[in-house]
Amino acid sequence: MFELSRDSTLPLVDQIVERVARLIQHGQLAEGTRLPSIRKLAKLVGASPFTVVDAYDRLVARGLIESRAGRGFFVSRRRSGVVAIIEASPDPGANAVSLARAVLSRTSDIVAAGSGFLPDNWYGEIASNALLSRVSMSRRPQAWSACPPQGLTELREQIANKLVQQGIAVSPSNIVTTAGASQAFDLISRILLSPGDTVLVEDPSYFVLFEQLRSHHVRLVPIPRRAEGPDLEALEAACRAHRPRAFFLQTLIHNPTGWSIEPARSHRILSLAEQYGFAIIEDDLYGDLHEGNAVRLAQIDGLRHVIYVGSFTKMIGPALRVGFAATDSALVSQIIERKVLSTLTGSGLLEAFVSEVLASGRYRRHVQQVRARLTRMRTDSLKALQSTGVRFDSTTGEGIFLWGRLPEAANLDSIVSRGRDHSILLAKGSLFSPAGEPSQHMRFNAAYGTAPELVHYLTQCLKAAA
Amino acid sequence: MFELSRDSTLPLVDQIVERVARLIQHGQLAEGTRLPSIRKLAKLVGASPFTVVDAYDRLVARGLIESRAGRGFFVSRRRSGVVAIIEASPDPGANAVSLARAVLSRTSDIVAAGSGFLPDNWYGEIASNALLSRVSMSRRPQAWSACPPQGLTELREQIANKLVQQGIAVSPSNIVTTAGASQAFDLISRILLSPGDTVLVEDPSYFVLFEQLRSHHVRLVPIPRRAEGPDLEALEAACRAHRPRAFFLQTLIHNPTGWSIEPARSHRILSLAEQYGFAIIEDDLYGDLHEGNAVRLAQIDGLRHVIYVGSFTKMIGPALRVGFAATDSALVSQIIERKVLSTLTGSGLLEAFVSEVLASGRYRRHVQQVRARLTRMRTDSLKALQSTGVRFDSTTGEGIFLWGRLPEAANLDSIVSRGRDHSILLAKGSLFSPAGEPSQHMRFNAAYGTAPELVHYLTQCLKAAA
Repeated sequence: MFELSRDSTLPLVDQIVERVARLIQHGQLAEGTRLPSIRKLAKLVGASPFTVVDAYDRLVARGLIESRAGRGFFVSRRRSGVVAIIEASPDPGANAVSLARAVLSRTSDIVAAGSGFLPDNWYGEIASNALLSRVSMSRRPQAWSACPPQGLTELREQIANKLVQQGIAVSPSNIVTTAGASQAFDLISRILLSPGDTVLVEDPSYFVLFEQLRSHHVRLVPIPRRAEGPDLEALEAACRAHRPRAFFLQTLIHNPTGWSIEPARSHRILSLAEQYGFAIIEDDLYGDLHEGNAVRLAQIDGLRHVIYVGSFTKMIGPALRVGFAATDSALVSQIIERKVLSTLTGSGLLEAFVSEVLASGRYRRHVQQVRARLTRMRTDSLKALQSTGVRFDSTTGEGIFLWGRLPEAANLDSIVSRGRDHSILLAKGSLFSPAGEPSQHMRFNAAYGTAPELVHYLTQCLKAAA
Repeated sequence: MFELSRDSTLPLVDQIVERVARLIQHGQLAEGTRLPSIRKLAKLVGASPFTVVDAYDRLVARGLIESRAGRGFFVSRRRSGVVAIIEASPDPGANAVSLARAVLSRTSDIVAAGSGFLPDNWYGEIASNALLSRVSMSRRPQAWSACPPQGLTELREQIANKLVQQGIAVSPSNIVTTAGASQAFDLISRILLSPGDTVLVEDPSYFVLFEQLRSHHVRLVPIPRRAEGPDLEALEAACRAHRPRAFFLQTLIHNPTGWSIEPARSHRILSLAEQYGFAIIEDDLYGDLHEGNAVRLAQIDGLRHVIYVGSFTKMIGPALRVGFAATDSALVSQIIERKVLSTLTGSGLLEAFVSEVLASGRYRRHVQQVRARLTRMRTDSLKALQSTGVRFDSTTGEGIFLWGRLPEAANLDSIVSRGRDHSILLAKGSLFSPAGEPSQHMRFNAAYGTAPELVHYLTQCLKAAA
């Protein structure tokens, strides 16, 4: 019944766990049955008592057996209460939240062409056991202690240094860390916005942001985004007509188009913010991928109208969830207070990890590698997608995204929805419109644009549409 | 200028970093100065070029030097932009948020008698490099990938198992993970509560919760908490008078008193929830420390009126920030959606870590150890605090907290405020009153109750007051 194999590659402890689990699952060990004592089983299988303790612990953790004080281990009675996971599977491309959920819950066999993340294997050097060990060893107190709600001091110093190097005049006291940029947007919105306020957003822009803002019962006014920046006439008209409270925009490597704002235009946007008194939330998630001389609004403005939001999630990996806001000290205090009242604080372990990545110099190297790799992939993906019938603007920008246009005859809803059956995750253009207007655009992740399944599927779809 | 020591315990790379940093900080290497090339410095100090690359990377990361493409490394120009951190230091015991900030930002030289966390060195076996390595190795894909917004499947299965073993009938589909219990309260509040709603809270109870709820513009009605549970007459009267939308309560090991509700009383609370149609948010952060036969409301109710909230933060460590809510599938969907719109998702790394702790069986062992240690510390702390003049009820409960009463003549505001000068962090009773009513109570963390500095300080204070 309990014969174990010494030749197996499976450690003894795992063999015991699997053997007992199977006996229980097949009903050979009935509910309530007492298991052999630790000493007895150890003798029976020729293992040490420690091995058996370890195996029993794991079986308890899996809910298969339970310990009763002083009386030993018994097969659990209640395991029927745990049923298989049956989850409603929402149409993954249908709306902003369902697309976000699909992207975040994807498995490795999915062609995540609609995702905003780099493929998991691009994080190789960063997502390493060696680095994690170093965090645990060299930063022991910070990594395992409670994290100050403003963020780990050392990490805030590093972030301030990074921004100063980019020409943004800040000190660590201007920084507050957040659970990704998403939490920064949420906290800032909860502080700045009241129901009924008007908020300007770019059209197209990041789809989850629209839903985030709508949940604060504000009115969204779209400002068309061109290759050189937001449409300034539309922006000024919106300011006059609506007296907006805030403008959320992406200066560099805009999502979904990859475009960056011309510095001259940045200045004009800041003048309007001054004149009409609105806050600019500058979302700089992809700016580190910008080649050459990047000019951010926060740099010109000096954090007078601009609240700068950054994140390490896109570059260091989606499991990290460390972002930050940089703003004046009065707003920093309010953000910290709102953070305490919503998630209490951040994770010292995650912040220490990011701090270690920055301190080691790996971040800079990693960003350079990603940039080079994306440059190659953009060219290849562009060619591959064009071959299927997708069209692109002459200005295709930089970064992770390619913003393509499908022929008029193509039905995007159907292409996205049927993509699921081919394990292809797509992001349709209408999601990137604040008003959800119909669009023939689609956002492609350059890292996946050459995937044969995708190319084949789109070719078929667009041939059928033509 | 660059002589390094082979005998130093400091690795060569650290020596180079420190040497260069000092030269820059002392002005011996002026702004804009070009540093020796990697090859040259390597030769100069007799190190490998890799060591120098590593050192330069770290200096770049610290903002002291910068690389210019193809031209080498230069002393940064802008480092004057980074100033020392000068932060307003709010009176740490004055209000809920400032106490929370003080607790979370404390340093190891503070006697954290007012903290709700166990001392960092109590997490020893859990907060280990070995365990962290195992997470990175054995759970590689989950640990480094995006985390599904509902939570890692394996972790939700383990949580469901844990609850089923406690008699709460749930499946993994009923679970959604959150950034600590705080985020669960925040998300649930954002879904269930509208401005003007009445919410019942226990008096006394966890102070941050009051501020969290107030930020949703609801009205708090306090229900007195007795040793045997909430005052049922007051509860029924409040139900009749206010038709509350929700009742936040702690069944087991109530914070700050350590008391647990009698099972018969639980049944009566559920009947009132049925009759008056309010939701019960059962906060079970400390329940695992309960000795003997614990009965939770969720167990009796079967998640019809009860939304169960748990967390691993208190037991596994404050750096973890992994909590969860268990509720019916309709509310689970709403919580997931709100989670996507506030923090997007959780951290796969943290959730994989908790999953590994549970799978290894260490959690159960660790909780047993903590429980035994707290039992001893409660007895010792009680005696030590009584010796200073603090009084306690005959029913002192279990868990981390001791809820003591100071003599009428003692001025708690002053004792808390002056405690800071003695590096003692205290939590005054009025914070635990939803209405902020004056109180002679103080909440003590049993793990710190015997600290000589605390005993000495309180003795002096209470002698002076008498």
